[in-house]
Amino acid sequence: EIIPQENYFSREMLDRLSGKRTDKTWLEAKHSDPDTVYLMFSKLSPMVSAPQEDNGARGETRLCRFRYEAVKDLLQKPATVLIFLGVERRKNPSSSSSSQNNGGTWEPPAWFAVGTDEDAVELLKRCREKNCCFPKSPNRDLLKLNEEEAGVVAQARSVLCWHSRYSFCPTCGSSTGLEEAGYKRSCLNSECRSLQGVHNTCYPRVDPVVIMLVVHPDGNQCLLGRKKIFPTGMFSCLAGFVEPGESVEEAVRREVEEESGVKVGPVQYVSCQPWPMPSSLMMGCLAIAVSTDISVDESEIEEARWFSREQVIDSMFKGARPAFSVPPRQTIAHQLIRHWIGINANL
Amino acid sequence: EIIPQENYFSREMLDRLSGKRTDKTWLEAKHSDPDTVYLMFSKLSPMVSAPQEDNGARGETRLCRFRYEAVKDLLQKPATVLIFLGVERRKNPSSSSSSQNNGGTWEPPAWFAVGTDEDAVELLKRCREKNCCFPKSPNRDLLKLNEEEAGVVAQARSVLCWHSRYSFCPTCGSSTGLEEAGYKRSCLNSECRSLQGVHNTCYPRVDPVVIMLVVHPDGNQCLLGRKKIFPTGMFSCLAGFVEPGESVEEAVRREVEEESGVKVGPVQYVSCQPWPMPSSLMMGCLAIAVSTDISVDESEIEEARWFSREQVIDSMFKGARPAFSVPPRQTIAHQLIRHWIGINANL
Ligand SMILES: Nc1ncnc2c1ncn2[C@@H]1O[C@H](COP(=O)(O)O)[C@@H](O)[C@H]1O
Ligand SMILES: Nc1ncnc2c1ncn2[C@@H]1O[C@H](COP(=O)(O)O)[C@@H](O)[C@H]1O
Ligand SMILES: [Mg+2]
Ligand SMILES: [Mg+2]
Ligand SMILES: [Mg+2]
Ligand SMILES: [Mg+2]
Ligand SMILES: [Mg+2]
Ligand SMILES: [Mg+2]
Ligand SMILES: [Zn+2]
Ligand SMILES: [Zn+2]
Repeated sequence: EIIPQENYFSREMLDRLSGKRTDKTWLEAKHSDPDTVYLMFSKLSPMVSAPQEDNGARGETRLCRFRYEAVKDLLQKPATVLIFLGVERRKNPSSSSSSQNNGGTWEPPAWFAVGTDEDAVELLKRCREKNCCFPKSPNRDLLKLNEEEAGVVAQARSVLCWHSRYSFCPTCGSSTGLEEAGYKRSCLNSECRSLQGVHNTCYPRVDPVVIMLVVHPDGNQCLLGRKKIFPTGMFSCLAGFVEPGESVEEAVRREVEEESGVKVGPVQYVSCQPWPMPSSLMMGCLAIAVSTDISVDESEIEEARWFSREQVIDSMFKGARPAFSVPPRQTIAHQLIRHWIGINANL
Repeated sequence: EIIPQENYFSREMLDRLSGKRTDKTWLEAKHSDPDTVYLMFSKLSPMVSAPQEDNGARGETRLCRFRYEAVKDLLQKPATVLIFLGVERRKNPSSSSSSQNNGGTWEPPAWFAVGTDEDAVELLKRCREKNCCFPKSPNRDLLKLNEEEAGVVAQARSVLCWHSRYSFCPTCGSSTGLEEAGYKRSCLNSECRSLQGVHNTCYPRVDPVVIMLVVHPDGNQCLLGRKKIFPTGMFSCLAGFVEPGESVEEAVRREVEEESGVKVGPVQYVSCQPWPMPSSLMMGCLAIAVSTDISVDESEIEEARWFSREQVIDSMFKGARPAFSVPPRQTIAHQLIRHWIGINANL
């Protein structure tokens, strides 16, 4: 039985065309192509046009899209980071699209992300849309996009975060240079051993994380915890980084025991979510507890509790007086909890 | 339905006790504890006692274990990397174990990995066992351990590989210092922004990889490919690195299409395997093809082919003239193929 799962940040509206990353001629033609779409990032935040406050619930946050002419000067600046994101998956030109490349053969528009350090106020003036901004709280503000744009932002922001913190070679400490349309940084020291063979030091980092809903041995309660930084009353799934030499299932058992003292037996993968703050891959699992006493690791978790199925349903579907709240639907924590209340109590 | 899966390299015979990594007093006491076990690594290769050639199939490759007295001098050298691996999971002293710590309360032995640059020939003289060596081909030689030692090596080697290539701060290029018993490196430049907040630059890297058995739409053939470097006649599952901002399922679809031209629909996670060369986490999946024409990416794959269920069974269970060979049982590729021939043709 195969259930297609799709979480926020995981939709791929672009075909990454990784083979084109080394094709300089093709990339250069796309840079100045009038159909090419540029997204602009300042301090790892994308420029968006926020819904008008006075319009109430109307409208969603949308990415500001730029054409070549509007970003041309930025692309010349040495501090600018340019990432090739891919081409739109649609096979046919839409009626609004005008240009025909290569004497008639239509190609879907290419997308690039531009990361720049230029003054944010000046950058915002480049956009003709109203209410533009670079949102300040990625954890909250990047959850307001539609599914397609969320997927593009996940890719772009993860790669930009990597460039912002990995500009020196970890093997020798020298500077590195951007290559392969933003997906590689090579050491500029020609003696460096990172240049011999293929090494992960040159490629963007993705951190696997486990996030799990722990189910009580009775099948009718689940374990949720809260960190001090959570909004009042909010509880979520436990989570933690997969360590070197560890499987996903063992990481689930170790993190649950570390954070709550609860021992876990069987673990089942449910779905995953890229989380671009900065570049995690959240592996969502159901975990069956084989003990029930809770003893929290106070350095990480403020409180952990067993919640009954009824309490959880009440909280998710806004009962009159929910005992607690869960994270929003865009999070895999929310989706794991929903998944659990949707399946039979006895796994 | 939850199937416990265990792949080679994923058994955890040690409790990592991550909370102890910052407890200097406890760690120091364990260093000189006579029960403590040290493993020795030279150039990322563990010292092992290989089975005697003249003894035929008898015996397996085993890790050489050292006591404090035998490595004491190495621990003083500044170039030595010392990693705390954890403590044995057993709750009671075995009859052979003599020491009782803290006036009577027995504690399970702690394990450490020692990474050193000292002359390998001299290091080998420290071991009293016969036929010791530092194997040269990790991809082959590290597959000869028992399940428990394989799990320990997966952890130790991944962390040591990270230290060997990440000794400079990627954010500012300065030197870093080892902390938290080997699980953290902090920048020694007090002005560095990597010291403000928590950042992945300080923690060991784990690279998520997808590895997938692609099943033909007819359910009775699977897609296997070979790289130029494979032994003659060997075919395996396709695989590739998960990219930033990508889900496991999308990475499967992208890599299969890139490498073979075959389009994939549903993807199902099966099990995973830590692969410590240097530090991958192989996410094993079954993928259902929705197209069948093959067009290989010659830069990566030499040949890819659909193999029938009969051909695969023949190859795995050594038919008279198998058309091809698959990787050994210690690989997740082997286990995915086995999994497929064990399940019903119609998923
Ligand atoms: N790749 C990483 N990025 C950030 N923090 C990490 C990473 N790996 C380990 N950590 C540590 O893990 C802590 C969070 O705990 P957890 O998410 O439960 O594993 C952080 O405060 C760091 O000390
Ligand atoms: N973390 C990484 N470590 C090593 N190679 C990588 C990594 N990320 C991307 N690559 C590239 O991916 C190629 C292997 O292709 P694949 O395994 O199919 O993704 C390597 O030759 C590198 O060019
Ligand atoms: Mg955690
Ligand atoms: Mg934790
Ligand atoms: Mg952790
Ligand atoms: Mg590959
Ligand atoms: Mg590939
Ligand atoms: Mg790849
Ligand atoms: Zn270098
Ligand atoms: Zn630094």
